[in-house]
Order: sequence, then structure tokens, then C-alpha cells
Amino acid sequence: MERLMDRIRADGRVIGKDILKIDSFLNHQVDVDLMEVIGEEFARYFRRKEITKVLTVEASGIAPAIFTARALRKPLLYARKSKPSTMDAGHYAAEVQSFTKGRVFDITVSASFLGPSDKVLIIDDFLAFGSTVRGLLEITSRAGAEVVGVGIVVEKGFQEAGRQLREQGIDLCSLVVIDRMSEGSVEMHGGIPAASAGHPRR
Amino acid sequence: MERLMDRIRADGRVIGKDILKIDSFLNHQVDVDLMEVIGEEFARYFRRKEITKVLTVEASGIAPAIFTARALRKPLLYARKSKPSTMDAGHYAAEVQSFTKGRVFDITVSASFLGPSDKVLIIDDFLAFGSTVRGLLEITSRAGAEVVGVGIVVEKGFQEAGRQLREQGIDLCSLVVIDRMSEGSVEMHGGIPAASAGHPRR
Repeated sequence: MERLMDRIRADGRVIGKDILKIDSFLNHQVDVDLMEVIGEEFARYFRRKEITKVLTVEASGIAPAIFTARALRKPLLYARKSKPSTMDAGHYAAEVQSFTKGRVFDITVSASFLGPSDKVLIIDDFLAFGSTVRGLLEITSRAGAEVVGVGIVVEKGFQEAGRQLREQGIDLCSLVVIDRMSEGSVEMHGGIPAASAGHPRR
Repeated sequence: MERLMDRIRADGRVIGKDILKIDSFLNHQVDVDLMEVIGEEFARYFRRKEITKVLTVEASGIAPAIFTARALRKPLLYARKSKPSTMDAGHYAAEVQSFTKGRVFDITVSASFLGPSDKVLIIDDFLAFGSTVRGLLEITSRAGAEVVGVGIVVEKGFQEAGRQLREQGIDLCSLVVIDRMSEGSVEMHGGIPAASAGHPRR
């Protein structure tokens, strides 16, 4: 996705060896127009799949996921990071490790909103070590629902999770894959083959 | 806003004396189509104001705020509830008390994204005791920015915050105001005068 790569080149900042800071348009301040294009891109890639729900986790997954849900005309469901007092007793939980926050926490989905008839598209902003996506896969599996694919805005290709998920047979679509990065330089490529411009034909 | 009131009547559930649970379409599972209409409604009400940025707080404010930002064609900025390691040293913080979670926490905005030239529209899902909105007002004031208005999806009119904010001279637009509620019954009215269908003329 050229437009996203241009934006990362213009506004991204590498901190240390493995943090890419793009909070001026993705996960603190949000370029809503770019998010809408991102949502349409995921919807195009997964258009041949039957999807009943788009699933993400609060908070930074919501922006790309809500526009994916909009383009697919399906509801969005976001896992909560703390169980509010208004959440029913019946819920599915999984443990997740935050890469940028350096701590472990539970993510939770109410059992009212996810069940065996659901076909779920998981969306998140970043994929690094994959803990969040694995937590969402666990929750979906506990609910008896099916995961039809995973869409990631920025995959850190030099970390393991992308390869592992693909080896597991998961249909993983990353809009941009970072090959390597260091201060002042980000090497990356688009994650969707240009020829198909969508989900690969079988 | 009739459509929102119909939805609250159909799917809302009152827990105890003062919790209205509408997480099947607002703040856990999200009816994206309804959120889009909500965003357009806020944009219509505040259309005569000069706005540079829409401000909310993660996570449940993001859905209504992102569609308000979309309708206004402005960026969204959401305050974080914990300072991630990728956030710059320069930031504005305020203390907020969560009504449903029963705890106090800091909300934080990077100083890079809010400054004296900003005219801010604050959006949130619920207004009860007003702690979150006051935190966002504090952050905006610390940044030297101006608040042009506050848009709330559901105001609990039987609690104090709405009246207090209006007395402070804040242009507060609540789409739905709950007058009173008890198990099985929610009395409410639309918060925008039908005659004006938008911001009141002066």
C-alpha cells in the first residue's frame, strides 16, 4: 500500500532498534481519511470470505477495524482490556503481553457477542510478537467461532509472528511489512501482491 | 435523535440505579452504521464552528469521535489512558475518575498534537459525573488550545455534569438525555431541539 508507505517515510520515527512511532496518523492522532482507505483495502482483500464480525482490541485497533467493518457493512467488536462493571458475568478472556507497555493483561469479550455461528475477521494496527493476535484467536476459539483471516496495518517482518501465523495456515494480510529499520531508515514493502490487488485467486 | 432512542429502548438494559448498558451497539460491540449517523449529527450541530481537531479519550469515545472527525474532515486525537513507551516526554496529563470502573487514572495527550492554534471539539460516549470531559478540558487548557464545544452521545441528565458544564458556558450537545431510569424503564428525550435541527441560531 504505497500511500501508507509514503506516510511512514514522511512521518515515521524509529526509536531504538524495534519501535516504529507513527502516532501522528495511526494510534494517537488519527488521519481519518487514511484509515478509511485502509479499511477499504482490508475489505477488498477479504471480499471473497464470508464474514459476520470484525474483531479487534481496544484502543489502537479500533480506528482501522471500524473502517474495515464499515466497508464490509458488518458490526465491529472490540475486546476490552479491563472488565468494566457493566460487562456480564459470561465472557471469554485471554492473556496478552504488551510489547510497548511491557506488561501482561487480560483481554475480554462478552459471550453475548461472539458464538459458534460467527465468522471473524481480526484487525490490528501492529504485528510484532503476535501476542494480541494470539489472544484474539484464543477468544474466538473459546467462543466456538471461526477466524477467516487477520488484517494488520504494519507488520514487523523481522520479528517472528507473521511467519508463525502463516505457517499455522492463517490467511494473514499485512498492508505494509517492515523488513528492517534503524534510526532514520525504514525498509519496507507492500504486503498485498500488486498483481492480485486483492485476495489471491485459487 | 429518534433512531438512537429507539435503539436504547430496544437493546438498553438498566443495571442497578444508574448504569445503562448499551454495549451491544455503542462501546463493546459497535453498530458502525449508527455511529456514522451519530458522527454526522455532531458535525451538523457544530457546523458553524471553526474546528481543527476532534478530541476524545480511548477506548469507548473513539467510535463516535472518529465518525465526527470524518464528517468534519478533521483529524481525530484520542487521549491515552496509559503513557506508552513510544510517547514523547512532552505531554499534557489530567486525572480522571472512571464511573464504571471505580478507579482513578491519568489521561495523556502528546504535546506534539495539541497547541494554541487548535480549536477542539470534544466527543465522548457517556456523560455522567463529567470527570472525563473535565480531564479533556484541562488538557486542552494546558495546551493553550480552545474548546469550541462538547458532543455527548448519551447524557445522564439526572446527574450533575451536564448542568454544570452548561453553566460554565460550554456549548454542550447531547444526542440523548436520560431523565430517569430504573429496571425495565428508561425515560429520555432528544438533546438537540427539533426546530433548529442543528446549532441554535443567535
